[in-house]
Amino acid sequence: MKDMTNLDDFEVGYNIPAKPGMDEAEIQTPCLVLDLDALERNIKKMGDYAKAHGMRHRTHGKMHKSVDVQKLQQELGGSCGVCCQKVSEAEVFARGGIKDVLVSNQVREPAKIDRLARMPKLGARTICCVDDVANVADLSEAAVRHGTQIECLVEIDCGAGRCGVTSTPAVVEIAKAIDAAEGLKFAGIQAYQGAMQHLDDYNERKAKIDIAVAMVKDAVDTLKAEGLACDIVGGGGTGSYYFESNSGVYNELQCGSYAFMDADYGRILDQDGKRIDQGEWENAMFILTSVMSHAKADKAIVDAGLKAQSVDSGLPVIHGRDDVEYVKCSDEHGVVMDPQGVLKVNDKLKLVPGHCDPTANVHDWYVGVRGGKVECVWPVSARGHAY
Amino acid sequence: MKDMTNLDDFEVGYNIPAKPGMDEAEIQTPCLVLDLDALERNIKKMGDYAKAHGMRHRTHGKMHKSVDVQKLQQELGGSCGVCCQKVSEAEVFARGGIKDVLVSNQVREPAKIDRLARMPKLGARTICCVDDVANVADLSEAAVRHGTQIECLVEIDCGAGRCGVTSTPAVVEIAKAIDAAEGLKFAGIQAYQGAMQHLDDYNERKAKIDIAVAMVKDAVDTLKAEGLACDIVGGGGTGSYYFESNSGVYNELQCGSYAFMDADYGRILDQDGKRIDQGEWENAMFILTSVMSHAKADKAIVDAGLKAQSVDSGLPVIHGRDDVEYVKCSDEHGVVMDPQGVLKVNDKLKLVPGHCDPTANVHDWYVGVRGGKVECVWPVSARGHAY
Repeated sequence: MKDMTNLDDFEVGYNIPAKPGMDEAEIQTPCLVLDLDALERNIKKMGDYAKAHGMRHRTHGKMHKSVDVQKLQQELGGSCGVCCQKVSEAEVFARGGIKDVLVSNQVREPAKIDRLARMPKLGARTICCVDDVANVADLSEAAVRHGTQIECLVEIDCGAGRCGVTSTPAVVEIAKAIDAAEGLKFAGIQAYQGAMQHLDDYNERKAKIDIAVAMVKDAVDTLKAEGLACDIVGGGGTGSYYFESNSGVYNELQCGSYAFMDADYGRILDQDGKRIDQGEWENAMFILTSVMSHAKADKAIVDAGLKAQSVDSGLPVIHGRDDVEYVKCSDEHGVVMDPQGVLKVNDKLKLVPGHCDPTANVHDWYVGVRGGKVECVWPVSARGHAY
Repeated sequence: MKDMTNLDDFEVGYNIPAKPGMDEAEIQTPCLVLDLDALERNIKKMGDYAKAHGMRHRTHGKMHKSVDVQKLQQELGGSCGVCCQKVSEAEVFARGGIKDVLVSNQVREPAKIDRLARMPKLGARTICCVDDVANVADLSEAAVRHGTQIECLVEIDCGAGRCGVTSTPAVVEIAKAIDAAEGLKFAGIQAYQGAMQHLDDYNERKAKIDIAVAMVKDAVDTLKAEGLACDIVGGGGTGSYYFESNSGVYNELQCGSYAFMDADYGRILDQDGKRIDQGEWENAMFILTSVMSHAKADKAIVDAGLKAQSVDSGLPVIHGRDDVEYVKCSDEHGVVMDPQGVLKVNDKLKLVPGHCDPTANVHDWYVGVRGGKVECVWPVSARGHAY
């Protein structure tokens, strides 16, 4: 299950925060810590849900960028493969042994298309998205050149406002072009509504997905009438998977954040008005940070600032504490209000990051912890693979 | 001048965006691009300023995290050494050949103190900050154990509200403890007013530095009366260096962002009410990004999102264009409004990041460009060295 990194090449405190076997107290901060028990419970729970609802789950590797986490999702959660966002990221997963890899994004630049077309030679089923008929010839030409096959999903913009076409005729036009192109295989539809995942209210989220489902159903039905079957109808995130699972149209989920959870996602509400981090999912990834200064009586300064996290979706929340609060983040420091002066220098705090994906992306390592001991240290394998 | 990384170990498009000698058009996106001419002009200009004002300039390595950029600052800008924020970062600079290294921050955790105490053995003068008398014995014990010397600055919080003491008696108490401790040397004062650097108005910034200068002068004079001379009185950033340089109290500047410039810093105004990126400093670091989808007529989707930058200080600005605007940033995508539909798929744009420091920190490489060609590819040497 391990990635191929040899930890002997790394020195604790210089370029790695811990090694397996160490006590949790010896971990060098700031770093990412995985609560392995919580992670495994989240993975198992989503896997069981997908299975019970007859859905495949293609777990989103852009969230964790880790071959090890992906393998855990396949072993424990029945994940059918990975989706990720960049060709270089996909190559990391393929080289790491993942056999079914979707780049859930457009691939347009000639050198990237060439790399994508070579990816099946790494032993991975290779899938990408298309939202422009002009892309089809380029993908086809590269696949033919390398004697490989690229499977293509037509991407529908079902509300996220990013890539993707917005009408069934546009979907059909691209699907037909793919179907007719040598070296390519039409494989279905990509329709992820990214913009609604973070709406707090369950019914507001449902209303957005109802629109997406209607768009996707129209496209799938029309394609079917044209003789084009969709092997994959993919989409669904941590804030919506129950809608897609019960839609009768989607057959693959693409959840990512459920595995780690974060403060921003945690705030959204389930059907009963309960935060999803209060029962549905557990916080499993934390930024471990230390108090490094307490020169002012009511204020502790911790060592996790902007170099240890992304604050695009808000500040981190201190896990399991309501007596202290992380109130300010600068490059290297976090300011923690400590009105009762309970913190001491070198005390450690676990921060739930505002947004797990870009926070994982600033770190090189995950430190997996169980029962007070470091059990594993996993590289953030695809970190920096943004091309 | 080069770092020790062997570029042959890296593959363009997999884990490196370019190699020297390539045309600029072949660079894989998203990545960081340095305009080497602009960078060199910025470095030379600040170096000349410091020299003309009798100031040393200890360039801030936490901004660029690059041994190569630091060496350029020393060769071309007369930088006297580096300051940085973490011990593991300092070790990267020391191992890279930088001979004078200040950790402009507190070092409290025992393993970190031990590493710091070993750093002089790498051939580097080693300096750190202290804001708590309880830290002195720990630093001393480690220096004695390793037979080395750690120089210590007392950190004054002169308005940033983070680490540092706030009264002259506290400064004197710590300075005396340092002076009396075996293995340590009292070296002066650290007083960086980080919070005011981004105030737009020149006179508002001046008022904040006047307060800082008064605090520092009182401390320096009192220490002198006690027989404690300050070799270093350090502080001053890109938004304030002219105040510290003319204060008669400070003798070392610690500017970082001037070298790269960014959108947030660029907005502050000089004495004449002119933005500092309109004459004082040039934008020298960009996020190179490509259009990857244009499925909607008025909207281009580019490949630089949150994985390619930090948006803590606002969205990036598209360099040299007023016909298109970067309006939204999600994990993997940027949304660029293109009302006239002038952009095409695979067009490249140069983004000025909102905040250069945490943006550099998500990338592994700087691609140095001159005259349309890639001249160098430098590692972000201390990226991930957060401990």
